[in-house]
Amino acid sequence: MKVIQKNITLKPKTRGFHLVTSEIISEVSEIKDISKGIMHILIQHTSASLSINENADPTVREDMETYFRRIVPEDSSLYQHNYEGLDDMTSHIKSVLLGSSISIPITNGRLNFGTWQGIYLCEHRNHGGNRRIVVTIIGE
Amino acid sequence: MKVIQKNITLKPKTRGFHLVTSEIISEVSEIKDISKGIMHILIQHTSASLSINENADPTVREDMETYFRRIVPEDSSLYQHNYEGLDDMTSHIKSVLLGSSISIPITNGRLNFGTWQGIYLCEHRNHGGNRRIVVTIIGE
Amino acid sequence: MKVIQKNITLKPKTRGFHLVTSEIISEVSEIKDISKGIMHILIQHTSASLSINENADPTVREDMETYFRRIVPEDSSLYQHNYEGLDDMTSHIKSVLLGSSISIPITNGRLNFGTWQGIYLCEHRNHGGNRRIVVTIIGE
Repeated sequence: MKVIQKNITLKPKTRGFHLVTSEIISEVSEIKDISKGIMHILIQHTSASLSINENADPTVREDMETYFRRIVPEDSSLYQHNYEGLDDMTSHIKSVLLGSSISIPITNGRLNFGTWQGIYLCEHRNHGGNRRIVVTIIGE
Repeated sequence: MKVIQKNITLKPKTRGFHLVTSEIISEVSEIKDISKGIMHILIQHTSASLSINENADPTVREDMETYFRRIVPEDSSLYQHNYEGLDDMTSHIKSVLLGSSISIPITNGRLNFGTWQGIYLCEHRNHGGNRRIVVTIIGE
Repeated sequence: MKVIQKNITLKPKTRGFHLVTSEIISEVSEIKDISKGIMHILIQHTSASLSINENADPTVREDMETYFRRIVPEDSSLYQHNYEGLDDMTSHIKSVLLGSSISIPITNGRLNFGTWQGIYLCEHRNHGGNRRIVVTIIGE
């Protein structure tokens, strides 16, 4: 049994949903030494999220951003916590709806995703900057 | 410490929320050999979800389907990604809202759920077909 | 490698979002003996949730409660499952939106959170009472 842990900084992204599977995997070459296990990732921020979804068509990620803008409207009358702008409280809400961490099985040295699955960084702030994640792998 | 991993195919379900605790546990008899650990399950699809909720009253699952149909409306003017029908993009959105994986503690050879908890397969497509999951158990 | 597992009862909370990081950590002193690992927490109820979000400004937690009251309205015409009151089915829905479990990396004897992250108990019932959680730590 091994535990591998890494801190990774993801490059700044524009607001919206971004595929980051390759950006993350390229930093965790140790995956290839794991035959059976789990990879856990936490994003160390409360205004951006991690999720798993469709990895091919960019319009899926665009529709996601459109949907979450609609379901969490940037209307100042709805929130008290707008110190950093109208994208402040809305980002916290999107963060709890989408989640701060994901877990993915590792099998025979690879993430055991379905064909169409990838890792999303969901950037809810207009100018989020670098985003730090902690990757923890437990397996054998 | 042990790592146990299994690929399981869940039988096709009608659109909606379904209790699948028994269907899954019957395929993972190894749980009974674990005194302390975690069971992780990933669904390898982007248009169906896994969740944990009430295991007794069927109207809870019906109300869930009603709620998610309302909060993610099948209105073609809202989405670009409708190639496979009006239940296409809506299924991706429900998938990120509900999540692709769950983790449950194992204690003394059993899932350590509360009295009223069970595993939901949330089928968002009108005709989803078989659904593949990967079960990973880590424990001792 | 170690597996540590504990059952903890959280004191009753008023309806809303509550920071419980300290209340939980004070019961799991074993964290300090883990150099690399993961802490998983399941709440054994279907009408309260666990989440991770902003740990400083109380208005964030107030805005969360306001948002979820709005997005999951207590309108009896929308739900069949209202046996225990208008906060019954709405609590189940909030539970699947927010999630029943969280996982956090442990590094050098501490939860490896970002500066502004804490653990939320999200109490969706008007009178939820005690809430039981199961904490499982896997690491070395």
